Amino acid sequence: MRYAALEAYVPGEQPRDKAYIKLNTNESPYPPSPEVIASVNAAAMEELRLYSDPTCRLLRRKIADRCGVSEENVFLSNGSDDILNFAFMAFGEKGAVFPDITYGFYSVFAALHGVPTRVMPLREDFTVDPADYLTGGRLTVLANPNAPTGLALPLPEIERIVAADPDRVVVIDEAYVDFGAESALSLLPRYDNLLIVRTFSKSRSMAGARLGFALADKALIDDLEKIKYSTNPYNINRLTQLAGAAAIDSDEYFAGNCRRICRTRERTTASLKELGFTVLPSMANFVFASSDQIGGEELYRRLKERGILVRHFDKDRIREYNRITIGSEDEMDRLIAAVKSILS
Amino acid sequence: MRYAALEAYVPGEQPRDKAYIKLNTNESPYPPSPEVIASVNAAAMEELRLYSDPTCRLLRRKIADRCGVSEENVFLSNGSDDILNFAFMAFGEKGAVFPDITYGFYSVFAALHGVPTRVMPLREDFTVDPADYLTGGRLTVLANPNAPTGLALPLPEIERIVAADPDRVVVIDEAYVDFGAESALSLLPRYDNLLIVRTFSKSRSMAGARLGFALADKALIDDLEKIKYSTNPYNINRLTQLAGAAAIDSDEYFAGNCRRICRTRERTTASLKELGFTVLPSMANFVFASSDQIGGEELYRRLKERGILVRHFDKDRIREYNRITIGSEDEMDRLIAAVKSILS
Repeated sequence: MRYAALEAYVPGEQPRDKAYIKLNTNESPYPPSPEVIASVNAAAMEELRLYSDPTCRLLRRKIADRCGVSEENVFLSNGSDDILNFAFMAFGEKGAVFPDITYGFYSVFAALHGVPTRVMPLREDFTVDPADYLTGGRLTVLANPNAPTGLALPLPEIERIVAADPDRVVVIDEAYVDFGAESALSLLPRYDNLLIVRTFSKSRSMAGARLGFALADKALIDDLEKIKYSTNPYNINRLTQLAGAAAIDSDEYFAGNCRRICRTRERTTASLKELGFTVLPSMANFVFASSDQIGGEELYRRLKERGILVRHFDKDRIREYNRITIGSEDEMDRLIAAVKSILS
Repeated sequence: MRYAALEAYVPGEQPRDKAYIKLNTNESPYPPSPEVIASVNAAAMEELRLYSDPTCRLLRRKIADRCGVSEENVFLSNGSDDILNFAFMAFGEKGAVFPDITYGFYSVFAALHGVPTRVMPLREDFTVDPADYLTGGRLTVLANPNAPTGLALPLPEIERIVAADPDRVVVIDEAYVDFGAESALSLLPRYDNLLIVRTFSKSRSMAGARLGFALADKALIDDLEKIKYSTNPYNINRLTQLAGAAAIDSDEYFAGNCRRICRTRERTTASLKELGFTVLPSMANFVFASSDQIGGEELYRRLKERGILVRHFDKDRIREYNRITIGSEDEMDRLIAAVKSILS
């Protein structure tokens, strides 16, 4: 087996021993819109006998319209992980560069495809230093907002990175962009080396549907299409295409959920700070927090004992932190109560 | 872009200019079972906010039970194409070997992953010569029944190939096995280099759901899992997992459909022979047929003018043939009537 030495990605745990409050995988606490729920009916199920449309014609047009781009600037695939994987395959010939603290899957994709990687340390305060990403000709991958920190890079700094070297592709992974950060979408008309990656998993409450999309110049989109047509052209099934189209049609519902989640995030941040936590200023649907009264791993473990799952990374620099998904108001009240009880 | 020279797979055409009788992509003419249709309800749609189970626990157990193997012998992924792609990635280090006339995606996977390929010509009558696949240490990939010929290799010949060299992996692609061929499943306990690949797309009427599975020794399954966890661990969505489980529970319904399709196939074969066609003895849900009264491309084109799509491959040795999916009785009556009219 060619990949015997490979270390695969480790998804957030999904224990089954009891019912947990799940604040560990950045899912939405709110269901998809009524339109999405109604989008799959018996007729749609009957049509499962037919292959899905590999061009995702309807959904692609809706996303193009919503984002103000042409259909030829939109690529759809089975979740944004799938697109990131394709980007490492397609554009990693000269290597890749990304921060030391970021989405853990980037290093897995790089290893899988033999892409030599340069890892740039975030600044002491966990912000990205744009100067680290200006030269070198490597595929540049930045989550914005970043995970697990939640910190966003302002648009002018993104532009500085994208503009610095038009010969390499810059991927901006905007999985969490709908929770307050500024999208790089407005840069697209001017930069043909910019690849924006988005997902329906977070702000659109469809993690279980597997739908991601990319926005870029036609030439980059064509490259991604070529890989999709060389691996699994039908990888978005009929039901997900229907649900995705219904989700775009009910954007206002999801925008309302995002506003709610942002309010809950601010309230949660304030409560954690009152309890003495350091909480990074998040623009995502999670907060990244540490306490000098309790270690990161211990807090994770004691919350789990109390039926609350958060995400702890046993990794240099962030060992004292936990990433806490913003759930419903009630779930966050219970989190804060549990933290108080643990600290007292 | 690393794959600039790559030639991607070309899926069967899906023209939209009018309604066609689709006999070109080997879909089932019958809908999924009532249980499958009922499997996705509003509650399931609400749960789309949560990630799907990357281990596919429930579905994996059902498939293991149905096939009489352990869960550790079952791998699930987003369609059988996905699994075949992973197999070329994982096991193609020393090259791959497959017939000249077979599923067109094998050569695409090989090219994508830089797997050097040896293509063995089928015999004059389009049967596989097992002697071609005994040595060489290469990943061996055989569709059984083969596509687009529909011809099946008897189990003792498959065993001869698998047993000849235990150090290389032999993939038996059983996409069409439920239409009359003998599965290699009974060989599994004795051969740890055998990888059987199956799909829900054909006999289970779920082409649009994207679900395939592999059966093999635990070590091979673990290798495939590792690649899945290094690319897209959640690639089977929640709805497809539910539909797949319901499909396994309604196996009798699908077995009935397969019997119907086999009867229609025999009737269609007889009718085509009456019209002077050469029809290979198919064990699949399609027939491969040529006529000395009309060229393959011309028949394809004239059927399309009459609203009937079949699949023509512009390829040496099979240019005079068309692959015709077995549709409903009525669809095949209309096909035969159209062929009669074209020939007269």
